[in-house]
Amino acid sequence: MFQTYEPRTDRSFASKHAPLLRAELKRRELDGFIVPQTDEYQNEYTPASAERLAWVSGFTGSAGAAIVMQDKAVIFVDGRYTLQVRDQVDDALFAYEDLVETPPAKWIETQGAKGAKIGYDPMLHSLGGLEALEKAAAKSGVVLVPQRDNPVDAAWADRPAPPSAEITPHDLAYAGESAADKQAQIAETLKRQGADAVVLTSPASLAWLFNIRGGDVAHTPLPLGRAILSVNGTAELFIAPEKVTNSLAAHLGDSVCVRSEAEVADALRTLGTQKRRVSLDPALAPAWFFKELESAGATVMKQDDPCALPRALKNTAELDGARTAHIRDGVAVTRFLHWLSETAPGGGVDEISAAEKLEHFRADGGDLKDVSFESISGAGPNGAVIHYRVTTETNRKLEQGALYLIDSGAQYVDGTTDITRTIAVGDPTAEMRDRFTRVLKGHIAIATARFPKGTSGAQIDAFARLPLWEAGLDYDHGTGHGVGSYLGVHEGPQRIAKAPHAQALLPGMILSNEPGYYKTGEYGIRIENLVIVTPLAPVPGGEREMMEFETITLAPFDRSLIDPALLSAEELAWVNAYHVRVRETLAPRLPEAVSDWLHQATEEI
Amino acid sequence: MFQTYEPRTDRSFASKHAPLLRAELKRRELDGFIVPQTDEYQNEYTPASAERLAWVSGFTGSAGAAIVMQDKAVIFVDGRYTLQVRDQVDDALFAYEDLVETPPAKWIETQGAKGAKIGYDPMLHSLGGLEALEKAAAKSGVVLVPQRDNPVDAAWADRPAPPSAEITPHDLAYAGESAADKQAQIAETLKRQGADAVVLTSPASLAWLFNIRGGDVAHTPLPLGRAILSVNGTAELFIAPEKVTNSLAAHLGDSVCVRSEAEVADALRTLGTQKRRVSLDPALAPAWFFKELESAGATVMKQDDPCALPRALKNTAELDGARTAHIRDGVAVTRFLHWLSETAPGGGVDEISAAEKLEHFRADGGDLKDVSFESISGAGPNGAVIHYRVTTETNRKLEQGALYLIDSGAQYVDGTTDITRTIAVGDPTAEMRDRFTRVLKGHIAIATARFPKGTSGAQIDAFARLPLWEAGLDYDHGTGHGVGSYLGVHEGPQRIAKAPHAQALLPGMILSNEPGYYKTGEYGIRIENLVIVTPLAPVPGGEREMMEFETITLAPFDRSLIDPALLSAEELAWVNAYHVRVRETLAPRLPEAVSDWLHQATEEI
Repeated sequence: MFQTYEPRTDRSFASKHAPLLRAELKRRELDGFIVPQTDEYQNEYTPASAERLAWVSGFTGSAGAAIVMQDKAVIFVDGRYTLQVRDQVDDALFAYEDLVETPPAKWIETQGAKGAKIGYDPMLHSLGGLEALEKAAAKSGVVLVPQRDNPVDAAWADRPAPPSAEITPHDLAYAGESAADKQAQIAETLKRQGADAVVLTSPASLAWLFNIRGGDVAHTPLPLGRAILSVNGTAELFIAPEKVTNSLAAHLGDSVCVRSEAEVADALRTLGTQKRRVSLDPALAPAWFFKELESAGATVMKQDDPCALPRALKNTAELDGARTAHIRDGVAVTRFLHWLSETAPGGGVDEISAAEKLEHFRADGGDLKDVSFESISGAGPNGAVIHYRVTTETNRKLEQGALYLIDSGAQYVDGTTDITRTIAVGDPTAEMRDRFTRVLKGHIAIATARFPKGTSGAQIDAFARLPLWEAGLDYDHGTGHGVGSYLGVHEGPQRIAKAPHAQALLPGMILSNEPGYYKTGEYGIRIENLVIVTPLAPVPGGEREMMEFETITLAPFDRSLIDPALLSAEELAWVNAYHVRVRETLAPRLPEAVSDWLHQATEEI
Repeated sequence: MFQTYEPRTDRSFASKHAPLLRAELKRRELDGFIVPQTDEYQNEYTPASAERLAWVSGFTGSAGAAIVMQDKAVIFVDGRYTLQVRDQVDDALFAYEDLVETPPAKWIETQGAKGAKIGYDPMLHSLGGLEALEKAAAKSGVVLVPQRDNPVDAAWADRPAPPSAEITPHDLAYAGESAADKQAQIAETLKRQGADAVVLTSPASLAWLFNIRGGDVAHTPLPLGRAILSVNGTAELFIAPEKVTNSLAAHLGDSVCVRSEAEVADALRTLGTQKRRVSLDPALAPAWFFKELESAGATVMKQDDPCALPRALKNTAELDGARTAHIRDGVAVTRFLHWLSETAPGGGVDEISAAEKLEHFRADGGDLKDVSFESISGAGPNGAVIHYRVTTETNRKLEQGALYLIDSGAQYVDGTTDITRTIAVGDPTAEMRDRFTRVLKGHIAIATARFPKGTSGAQIDAFARLPLWEAGLDYDHGTGHGVGSYLGVHEGPQRIAKAPHAQALLPGMILSNEPGYYKTGEYGIRIENLVIVTPLAPVPGGEREMMEFETITLAPFDRSLIDPALLSAEELAWVNAYHVRVRETLAPRLPEAVSDWLHQATEEI
């Protein structure tokens, strides 16, 4: 199994570990140290060796930071984690602060003692983040002291080794474009921008550019490392030597020089000595890279990672792979939904057993590489917790009359999936059906949208909200995120969200379409399919180049939650046509009992 | 009449005036000079004395720039003006460049001769604009030389005097809040921001903050000048002494010190000497203010003009005034539409006579202060030119079978109006009706939208486009702009547009709702009403604080252009209810013949 449900920390972590860190800080003559949740690679899933905030405080949320001083300590979490932090972090040792209202910089500005020496690891802060800290320190008279040799690592006696999974070539049949062609394409971009080289700090860009996949973190096949691509098309790939296999060396070819990750500092200094113009993405690169390059004499050009947009524009092989992966995944999800329909009403299913069963069906397909994230398996009120993660301590039974929300995905070598279905156990209330149907209307509005080339996801996000707005309701998350090709389940630069952005939705992009509704303390609803941006055949009489979405996720919606009276004729036709497509595609691939059930589950409404 | 239709320049301007400028540049030992269209106040309507680009080149468009060198000259215009520039500017003297593709900075970077001395007036460039010029000059080796004493003004023998219209108090009955209260409110903002003072460079902010109105430019009652408000609530108002009347001095009171505009430089130096923290809006203030303040020793805080948002949030008196103004304006527009329906089919109406007739009906109401902009009066293909302005040279007859688009507005002391109606002369084609009805559907989508507090205009802009997108169509302008209260007909910070922005639509804001469709060479369609953002009464079962729009513009739509088959039942009900409201509000205020006509024009569809 790729998921566990045991708590990874407990409330004793702070009292066990904070003193060890303090002793190390004392040795270094530091009064305090900043411990962000982020790792060196801005990973969504951090390797165990980089879970420094969890080790020192017990807090395991996906965002946050701590400042450990000799005489006190404070932990910063956002609104999602105000309850969790109380459970996990001993309040005798850590004060709680709001990460948004009083972030570490503000705390240092207002609480930092003049002359106090506070350490930080420049590999764990973005340039913008570090500049905010430096500004705050200047105001309060705090002295910030960089510690590239992280004192948490020094204090953490049984720290796991950094991951060293083998890196394997990603087959051209799935990648659709050779690594050499990609490198030539990005070198061309650098030429156009007037850059001599780009430093790539994001493992996802390494994976795409060199057609390689790794296994260094959970749920995403990333090879942790860095790379430098020169405008002449040659590259240096900085990865731990033990990850390099013979097949990898042959795959990379002569134009890629493989070096140990420790040597990246030397390479940056060389760029500086040669007075190079170096492209670096301030949203992705740790502050350390900027400081090293600039102090060595390079000119840093702050620009988007040049691999990000090409990676998002999937080619035909990747799109075909995604479609195949979604059929395979649809089989697993439909087997699960059938199992749930038979088992849940008996009362014997809980959030963990359901998530395990779904993972079992996916693994049973034979091609599962990993789940693409930790399943959100929420029954009743737990479904209303948007970023819920079930543990043995929070596990709930699926009770009669409750809604059950399951958001899950898979990593297959041909594609990454992400799907959410909401299921009624027994008879749903009229309110649940009303809310579900409004969410479905929003989902259909995105699925059927036609929009001119150049339209951004910010422009269409509200289409998904309108049916909820009409009832005075809304949801507090984006409508869609980009999805990688056997890579991150969250991938930029495209998205469907209200946050102001101008990134156009372009052919080949894969996004999620996932409106929801959450009633705190009662239930949560989300309906999620993945879609591909595709050119629309010219509309008769039309004048603009238009786009639309192709839905690729295949699994039935719970018909008992749909109120047909709330749907327009077009919306009803869309649901019925989708169900026909699900049935015709999946039924031949399903065991007979499941196929029979699917025929019922997709009957015309 | 507030509008004229004679061309203001001709093609001889360049050959007459460019040599005069060159002689002046030679006297100053300059090789060239940059002439932007902008004036010192970023006015939408520039006073005649500031029409430097028109004087030197003949070009009268609303955006553009020229660089006049001793041996050549180039004029930069955007896509809207590629035809107009050919008519107005002699191509023997000026090369044409694209303002977007090759702006002046790019031209200087690529065409500027090393060592060439090019002058610029720092009062006519934004800080960002000047920084781009300076970067480009550094690359090409051009030397930029500031010329506060503008050489165009020196060369322009018969330059009109700068405007000096009297400034009058804006009655509290219309302003709704005393100037003293407004100054206290903004001083409070400065305190919160940690600023010692704000320099206000925008005449609209002066008008709002001091409850004054002027007459220095056409179509907007602006007092040209500057002001400094201190955190202690005292203010200095820098305006030409001849604009000050006795009633103004009494109105301003003791806390406002009136000084001549020339003294603003001294005042900035004083702020510098006193090491003040000074708020300045980089989007509004000329570069000159930044340079003066910084060189004198002040700390400049780049922040939004603190008056902009409070000005946009109209109070009850302003909203009541707007509603009254719109009834008065609706009477004039309806009389015009009646006249048009009787006269146009006979073939005796052209674009100018129609615009003049509408202005006549507005003036006949007795309260007209000005038109709020130059009417866009476009028949047939001229209606497809989005920023069309009719002159005696372009004037077209309203022909049978053509559409006629009239976008116009008025300045009344209680409110500013802006309305567009599209009228079919004779029988429209099925395509015209289809397109008109789609635009109407988009207009209704905005008019009836409900959205949660915090929603921006960027989020809802696409609601107005969806019915066009479905047919492969769109329009290339925003859906709505902010509107002032007896002030600018274009006012920020709110708008309904796809350009990424996060400004929430807040109660009291007035915006236009004006989707359109334009078929080049054939016809243009636009439907525009003004709306007020208002809190929505709680929806039963709703959870969010919601907003909606109140439509305040009152005039019938052309029913012959509406295809009821394309409207939903709700949309049809909205049109009919709107027409009932128009009829019941306006009919009692109309002459009997017009009232009779209005009854027919607003019959249920």
